Amino acid sequence: MQPIKIKLALDMMGGDHGPLTTIPAALAAISEFPQLNLVLCGDIDMLQQQLLFHNNFPHPQLSLVASNNDVGMADKPSVALRNKRESSMRRALDLVEQEQVQACVSAGNTGALIAMAHYVLKMLNGVERPALISGLPSCKGNPVYMLDLGATVNSDADTLFQFAVMGAVMAEEVVGINNPKVALLNMGEEEIKGSDQIKRASQLLTSCNDINYIGYIEGDDIFSGKADVIVCDGFVGNVALKTCEGVAKLILRRFETSLRQKVSAQFFGWLLKPFIKSLYQGVNPDHYNGASLIGLRGIVVKSHGNATKDAFLSAIRQAVREVERQVPAKIKDRLEHVLIDKA
Amino acid sequence: MQPIKIKLALDMMGGDHGPLTTIPAALAAISEFPQLNLVLCGDIDMLQQQLLFHNNFPHPQLSLVASNNDVGMADKPSVALRNKRESSMRRALDLVEQEQVQACVSAGNTGALIAMAHYVLKMLNGVERPALISGLPSCKGNPVYMLDLGATVNSDADTLFQFAVMGAVMAEEVVGINNPKVALLNMGEEEIKGSDQIKRASQLLTSCNDINYIGYIEGDDIFSGKADVIVCDGFVGNVALKTCEGVAKLILRRFETSLRQKVSAQFFGWLLKPFIKSLYQGVNPDHYNGASLIGLRGIVVKSHGNATKDAFLSAIRQAVREVERQVPAKIKDRLEHVLIDKA
Repeated sequence: MQPIKIKLALDMMGGDHGPLTTIPAALAAISEFPQLNLVLCGDIDMLQQQLLFHNNFPHPQLSLVASNNDVGMADKPSVALRNKRESSMRRALDLVEQEQVQACVSAGNTGALIAMAHYVLKMLNGVERPALISGLPSCKGNPVYMLDLGATVNSDADTLFQFAVMGAVMAEEVVGINNPKVALLNMGEEEIKGSDQIKRASQLLTSCNDINYIGYIEGDDIFSGKADVIVCDGFVGNVALKTCEGVAKLILRRFETSLRQKVSAQFFGWLLKPFIKSLYQGVNPDHYNGASLIGLRGIVVKSHGNATKDAFLSAIRQAVREVERQVPAKIKDRLEHVLIDKA
Repeated sequence: MQPIKIKLALDMMGGDHGPLTTIPAALAAISEFPQLNLVLCGDIDMLQQQLLFHNNFPHPQLSLVASNNDVGMADKPSVALRNKRESSMRRALDLVEQEQVQACVSAGNTGALIAMAHYVLKMLNGVERPALISGLPSCKGNPVYMLDLGATVNSDADTLFQFAVMGAVMAEEVVGINNPKVALLNMGEEEIKGSDQIKRASQLLTSCNDINYIGYIEGDDIFSGKADVIVCDGFVGNVALKTCEGVAKLILRRFETSLRQKVSAQFFGWLLKPFIKSLYQGVNPDHYNGASLIGLRGIVVKSHGNATKDAFLSAIRQAVREVERQVPAKIKDRLEHVLIDKA
């Protein structure tokens, strides 16, 4: 069986390093996936220059689309939406909307991307707000999908319920987990704990036969593998995810300090440091995966603003998988099914 | 100068292990602090048996108070408040209220302790809700105080403001940090991010000259030392703290798996494992410190339910420090000062 042709648009100007990281990642992706075509959106001169530098221009798997007035990392979402209609980010989203590509990837300003994607692509029927979802490492090996990681704040019970349905589809389709276990993140495991929204969402999930809802879990169980999908409000998810990064940095720092202090540790330092670094990367969500923006009528993958070549490449891989598994169509089907069941 | 006499009440029956850990911790505390007297509240037979086992009964620094019908770890706060008036937890709080002791320490059911402490001790003037605060490790060495860690949910702007004032007093008095830097935990550092409560709290703090408010910080900066005091809603703080625990467990697990897989790692395993364990304990809040319940007219220190002897001893030390520094009186003074300034 021939692999299906896939065409993606990349926002080449997003992220802290722009084409310096996005070009090497794009070149690595086309060599990894021979069936992949990429539309590179950005400053044409800069892109050509970087491609020539890598001896890869012109290339049959690559095409270029010019942008102007790109979105900065500090731009307000509302301003970007109004004034940055010719930016690389907007170009990439427009190509998805026009069905010229099947998905897009950006390492740009998260708030601007969410606002633009919402405006350009629109929501799936039955979804009120988009969510950022990412596969995090777990003790059991399988990734655990967590959402929302910061697309929305103050989610009500219905929104949390929709997040649960969308997360379950991601875990099933992208990782192949059968009947994934879905949990609500709360400040205790007892039924009486938490805000009213969470209690109501728990009731909705308990009465839904299509979701394998296992109840509340606490922060210390995010990575334990107890749940395959963890649902929370965007504010809470964002803080939890960034706190992980903070703990990983703290551990690395403590390790380095100990190395400097102890002679015996110094002796083993050269052996240990790369090992600890790889541990750090294994638990640092930045290095782990691209986050997807779901609930939209199209596939949008968000790479971290500070993404390295490998991180941006990993986000492209994520987009390829979501195209292959037709994630938005599957979410749409599942939501319709669940909503009929609920009615 | 003679050290001041200090008298504390201990809830001996709380926590997963009861007197098996609380008795050894109490004995360690009286040997560390010759000026300390402890009132041990609990099942008299069990306490005497454990003290005799350790050859320490009777002891001039110890007295016993009998309890009945102790609070279980699964008891609902409202039920504990109504039905457990003779419990060791309640006895300890009553002794604080009657000024027979200067503080109490419990490793019992957090929800029950908060409800009972609120009911028995009452709030300081100008404080609406109690907060759980703990000193967490930071990259700079000084602890960073974070609150609220789960005493309340859905805190409004005024409550967050009060938390900031109380946290600043803790950092100044207990750690001796001059003019501590106070930050609000948010999902971005830009002024436009976050919920309405947080934006309003930020305005209140910006216009308060008595607080060294440095603005928003994100989860990845909790441990960086950027701020000395981090203020957030109890739900968010609880999730963040427990997520740290989850990351620390994940790192430890990954390390153990790597050791099993790699021969070179196996070779150094016996050297490394204790080192990694101490790193883990250094970032695991459980092992770090007792949390204090502040905003009340008395000192209540909460040790983790799963506390070891060392963790319970560390909570007793925390109570001693708060008594020496007269934390509730300092909070009361500061709040009055700030509220006059605000008016």
